[in-house]
Amino acid sequence: MSLFKHLLRNPTAKSYSYSSPSIIMPSNLILTCLSHFTTDASPSTVQLTQYSGLGPTKANEKPRVVVLGSGWAGCRLMKGIDTSLYDVVCVSPRNHMVFTPLLASTCVGTLEFRSVAEPIARIQPAISREPGSYFFLSHCAGIDTDNHVVHCETVTDELRTLEPWKFKISYDKLVIALGAEASTFGIHGVKENAIFLREVHHAQEIRRKLLLNLMMSDVPGISEEEKSRLLHCVVVGGGPTGVEFSGELSDFIMRDVRQRYSHVKDYIHVTLIEANEILSSFDDRLRHYATKQLSKSGVRLVRGIVKDVDSQKLILNDGTEVPYGLLVWSTGVGPSTLVKSLDLPKSPGGRIGIDEWLRVPSVQDVFAVGDCSGYLESTGKTVLPALAQVAERQGKYLFSLLNRIGKAGGGRANSAKDMELGDPFVYRHLGSMATIGRYKALVDLRQNKESKGLSLAGFLSWLVWRSAYLTRVVSWRNRFYVAVNWATTFVFGRDISRI
Amino acid sequence: MSLFKHLLRNPTAKSYSYSSPSIIMPSNLILTCLSHFTTDASPSTVQLTQYSGLGPTKANEKPRVVVLGSGWAGCRLMKGIDTSLYDVVCVSPRNHMVFTPLLASTCVGTLEFRSVAEPIARIQPAISREPGSYFFLSHCAGIDTDNHVVHCETVTDELRTLEPWKFKISYDKLVIALGAEASTFGIHGVKENAIFLREVHHAQEIRRKLLLNLMMSDVPGISEEEKSRLLHCVVVGGGPTGVEFSGELSDFIMRDVRQRYSHVKDYIHVTLIEANEILSSFDDRLRHYATKQLSKSGVRLVRGIVKDVDSQKLILNDGTEVPYGLLVWSTGVGPSTLVKSLDLPKSPGGRIGIDEWLRVPSVQDVFAVGDCSGYLESTGKTVLPALAQVAERQGKYLFSLLNRIGKAGGGRANSAKDMELGDPFVYRHLGSMATIGRYKALVDLRQNKESKGLSLAGFLSWLVWRSAYLTRVVSWRNRFYVAVNWATTFVFGRDISRI
Repeated sequence: MSLFKHLLRNPTAKSYSYSSPSIIMPSNLILTCLSHFTTDASPSTVQLTQYSGLGPTKANEKPRVVVLGSGWAGCRLMKGIDTSLYDVVCVSPRNHMVFTPLLASTCVGTLEFRSVAEPIARIQPAISREPGSYFFLSHCAGIDTDNHVVHCETVTDELRTLEPWKFKISYDKLVIALGAEASTFGIHGVKENAIFLREVHHAQEIRRKLLLNLMMSDVPGISEEEKSRLLHCVVVGGGPTGVEFSGELSDFIMRDVRQRYSHVKDYIHVTLIEANEILSSFDDRLRHYATKQLSKSGVRLVRGIVKDVDSQKLILNDGTEVPYGLLVWSTGVGPSTLVKSLDLPKSPGGRIGIDEWLRVPSVQDVFAVGDCSGYLESTGKTVLPALAQVAERQGKYLFSLLNRIGKAGGGRANSAKDMELGDPFVYRHLGSMATIGRYKALVDLRQNKESKGLSLAGFLSWLVWRSAYLTRVVSWRNRFYVAVNWATTFVFGRDISRI
Repeated sequence: MSLFKHLLRNPTAKSYSYSSPSIIMPSNLILTCLSHFTTDASPSTVQLTQYSGLGPTKANEKPRVVVLGSGWAGCRLMKGIDTSLYDVVCVSPRNHMVFTPLLASTCVGTLEFRSVAEPIARIQPAISREPGSYFFLSHCAGIDTDNHVVHCETVTDELRTLEPWKFKISYDKLVIALGAEASTFGIHGVKENAIFLREVHHAQEIRRKLLLNLMMSDVPGISEEEKSRLLHCVVVGGGPTGVEFSGELSDFIMRDVRQRYSHVKDYIHVTLIEANEILSSFDDRLRHYATKQLSKSGVRLVRGIVKDVDSQKLILNDGTEVPYGLLVWSTGVGPSTLVKSLDLPKSPGGRIGIDEWLRVPSVQDVFAVGDCSGYLESTGKTVLPALAQVAERQGKYLFSLLNRIGKAGGGRANSAKDMELGDPFVYRHLGSMATIGRYKALVDLRQNKESKGLSLAGFLSWLVWRSAYLTRVVSWRNRFYVAVNWATTFVFGRDISRI
């Protein structure tokens, strides 16, 4: 009975009788369970409690690691942290990690959205089981390093479930893994009109818009010019994301649009705009190959700089107007507004400054990993690129370091000041991969642009690309789904329901 | 070159040279393809054409069947229509059919959304291939039966791709399969606060809200009362949809919430409110069994009538207030605003009136099928229930009838006036099924409430239920996905990423 006592406020104050929860309904099936609702909760017992956060951990509790963010760095750290040593609290506006290298494939239906999203509770089950571990669907609103406290505010998007709610969390160790924001270089109209490709909801928006445009262009009375505009897909930025998305789009057009939208198949085109070279981090030979393959599959490669973006066209530096129906923006990332606003030392480029042990050196117990962090100038090291593999490696290094600190008894706030931290973090680049559509990919296994090493392009690389990513997908469930999605796309083609 | 001629308006009117589309890029990888954009399209050639619809079919074209709607009736008809006799034009605000009996399972992740959505282009491939067949993502705005014309307006929802666009379609035969609308009985606040369960986007909204509430209830500082409210899922309406959804929810709670949201597992509850008996169309014994099973799995059955719905609570007729976090409304359906507004004869209850051949008898070449239609009083027959199996059977009957008319040369507008139509439509009820969670279902194979026949409840019924629906899913692709989804849910549990 008490389960429900807070649920009902009955102004008529009826009194219901009830015998047992396992009661068998009378044969006339009259549903009498209103008696579940009782009115014995006096208003005073159901007032808001004054508890507005997680206070400092007590001696009988485990030390608390607070992780801000749920990207590659934060999730790798949470996966490996020893939950017998620490309680883990994750604060992030999304309850899953996105397997970003496969996100471009979801926009056209090669993969399903859910196959590239990994719930945090599956990455670190303690978060949903341990009494002191939590996941909070919230933004970080600020960090008070003096008092070891993080300020948070809940995310409720458009659903009117609850007003945004502010709360505080005390940390023993803080891991900042807030990631970065898509760069727009201050170009007018990008945020309003272009779609980025960083989250699952971006991929969903791209898919909905692409399918809408395909259908709209078939409506009677639409002019030829308007049809061409609606079906002109423009990608700005020739890095791996832009190139992979262009490749997927051209695959979709060649295989699925020709068959399923045959009325408008001659109107759809993909243009990739890049200010410099595409795939600049890859070997010359691979870049050359990619350029040739993309052109072959109908992707128009344009060298240009975008000056202004309007809702239906963009303008290049030389004055050329490019009408579009879908605009995807992937010109790299920069520090987020929150990261810029934090009162912490910064690396060249404005990221949170860290030392070789990934610590923010000016304050106690704060670490930063992934795209939001960069080596301080004083370390003499260059800032690492904003790559999943850097973030993942840093997350892996940091959970070992924190586990070691925890085992040595330095888990509590301010208790590891003079501890010997062991080997610093060293990054060794394992190479780059990118798919370019039509069962072709690039694999560049050189450690950097100057060094020698294996580089491959073509169908074999594509097999390497698929197998490598399939093994990297976090859970067996999603590994299974990615394989099933690939197989069904191969057999049945891509799904075109606009849901 | 001409492919792109409408795409660019270059104010500087540069002249680019270009050799061949298969050109190999120069080795310095300079992207020179701006030359794709030419400026030889004079503005006058790209003006809007005056073409604002599909005019009457000409003698050298096939007669045109226009289908309004993409539900069970419309899709069954389109699947079977002989596309060598007719061109098919479908007008609907969604480009897929929803396999409604499995929709409740998608709300909690037992099935994926896409597994229950079947694109129309897969149901009738001619729509995307034949030059005279089309699918238009549009609402029907009105029907001019005198001139054999349908008025349409495009659906573009929130995406600013194109302003809503009006156009007309002439028909030789018109099939009205517009379905029905969820009934709210004029109760204040239902439309604003409750979620229906009729479309994929409803299921998506339920899933997002349920997962949001689970996470919000874990935020520090939320009172006990607020937690109970957020996690109180209320279902209004005890028909098959309401009961199946309650069963799925209780399965989700018992299996997944207990494991993955263990902090709040004791706060989540399901209440099913019904004014009369639940599953009133089923055998007494089955209803009794369902009531017992639902109560066992923790679903609270309440007999009551909802008087008013607020954003966080609903009020019953007797004054009881029921706070809720999620409210799902499934109290049956009634005629839609559009159907009410059509100047056509009506059946008792306000549906479009039809005769025994599913014709709207007062006008030429107009048929109505599914939930939007009902027998005219003059036929002496009672209006059939709003069930998928009625709609599907009517779609099946009507495509045979239209094919027969077409073969006999009566396909054109006004050319089948005096044709002999053969046997009228006769409905024979094949029975009802409903799952109630925990691997249990009801199967009632009696033809009506009074007649005798097989009725089953329990695990065996559940197997019958699953197998029956698996074979009814329209495409092999979705049949495969439904089986894969069921298997993964069994092995790994339900997915809880909130995407």
